[in-house]
Amino acid sequence: MIKNIFVAIVFVAVFTFCGLAQEKQAAPDEDLIRNVLVTQQQAWNNGDVEGYMNGYWKSDSLLFTSGGNIQRGWDSTFAKYKKTYDSKEKMGTLAFSQLEIRLLSPDAAWIFGHWELTRAKDHPEGVFTLLLRKFTDGWKIIHDHTSSKQ
Amino acid sequence: MIKNIFVAIVFVAVFTFCGLAQEKQAAPDEDLIRNVLVTQQQAWNNGDVEGYMNGYWKSDSLLFTSGGNIQRGWDSTFAKYKKTYDSKEKMGTLAFSQLEIRLLSPDAAWIFGHWELTRAKDHPEGVFTLLLRKFTDGWKIIHDHTSSKQ
Repeated sequence: MIKNIFVAIVFVAVFTFCGLAQEKQAAPDEDLIRNVLVTQQQAWNNGDVEGYMNGYWKSDSLLFTSGGNIQRGWDSTFAKYKKTYDSKEKMGTLAFSQLEIRLLSPDAAWIFGHWELTRAKDHPEGVFTLLLRKFTDGWKIIHDHTSSKQ
Repeated sequence: MIKNIFVAIVFVAVFTFCGLAQEKQAAPDEDLIRNVLVTQQQAWNNGDVEGYMNGYWKSDSLLFTSGGNIQRGWDSTFAKYKKTYDSKEKMGTLAFSQLEIRLLSPDAAWIFGHWELTRAKDHPEGVFTLLLRKFTDGWKIIHDHTSSKQ
């Protein structure tokens, strides 16, 4: 009897584990994609520009544009961010909102959303269009077109 | 002999026709996508805003943003264009250039490019990111994020 209960418990444990593992594998891509931005926002608000940059494709083909200026490549984009936001005061507090996420194919996605920075002296805000691809190490932004509200 | 030559000519004609027809069907999507912008540019430079708008998805879900402002829907975008560019002088001459086109799936594509208007009094220019989908009536822009050089 005790042996049977033990066997039953082992079965339940194994099935539960398998179920959870499958659930983890099957995390909808939309959640994974949203998480790229959540992680970026958290890193930014911790003053961690490199952590923020982790959401971007680490490639010379990364294409970033803001205010009509163009940065090509992860290194160039990182350098521009570090130069523009060289203090916690300039970084302020970043908030992404009103995210619209669309899967275009199993490995391509599009996001449109709002950004705003809360800083002591100003409150810049605007919109962004992102294009993401799914790589072996997860979803990464391969193109960012950011605009400021004028 | 003459009959044989006639039969041969008919064969060659039929195969040539079939070959051309197949070639037409197989026009690479990149050419079709590029043609959306070529057609828009021509329409614009003919003062035909509605013809220009034909490149956009005729849907309430069309999403257009420029300078941090957002237009949702084809009607709203058309109304904004008609209001902003209500004369040939304001429309000027439009040129798209440096187009980068990427197919993301058989029915989704991305374009990054430069735009410039040559007008009597100024010369605005900038970049744009477009997202296109392939519909039964061809490739259409479903999202346009345009920025002016500041």
